Amino acid sequence: MSITAKIDGVAVTTQANVYFDGKCVSHGIQFADGTKKSVGVILPAALTFNTGAPEIMEGVAGQCRVRLKGTDGKPGEWKTYGAGESFSVPGNSSFDIEVAGEPYHYICHFG
Amino acid sequence: MSITAKIDGVAVTTQANVYFDGKCVSHGIQFADGTKKSVGVILPAALTFNTGAPEIMEGVAGQCRVRLKGTDGKPGEWKTYGAGESFSVPGNSSFDIEVAGEPYHYICHFG
Repeated sequence: MSITAKIDGVAVTTQANVYFDGKCVSHGIQFADGTKKSVGVILPAALTFNTGAPEIMEGVAGQCRVRLKGTDGKPGEWKTYGAGESFSVPGNSSFDIEVAGEPYHYICHFG
Repeated sequence: MSITAKIDGVAVTTQANVYFDGKCVSHGIQFADGTKKSVGVILPAALTFNTGAPEIMEGVAGQCRVRLKGTDGKPGEWKTYGAGESFSVPGNSSFDIEVAGEPYHYICHFG
């Protein structure tokens, strides 16, 4: 369970992505090979995100509760993820995420 | 008045800086030569920031009203800054900033 504190050799998009009135804020980063990721933070809130491409969410600080949409369309079970832990979300799906207390900081890997 | 949309060749700190309950969120970046800056966003709010080192705030989207603390310790005049515009804040000082409507996105240059 190692924590990715820094990501080297990237270009950062200076304009942030602001979701849910600022409950989630991220900055896009791009690697030399064109790979795109984002670094972001979710403030205390209960939110539902829809995915286009599959995503891997890697925690770097704080923790969250997450419930993926099941393949049957029904919500799955709540699971808790902290710093150094990751969860995968399929493409064209959705997940509920709850953050309480301290903000949850993450790296979002696409594809 | 050109807008800096991307910053290349940096390391990004994955954990965000969260100020004023999330009304301001930034991510630190570091250049190969060790220079540090940050990319951030201020949501609609009226905030007062204190500076340690001198700062140059460079707007990349949205706009803000800013009032620096004068050298006599009294507030100066309000000025409006948008994307592609910058303002400088002395070290060990403070400034009031107001954002209304859309978020104000910025690059903070130190020193």
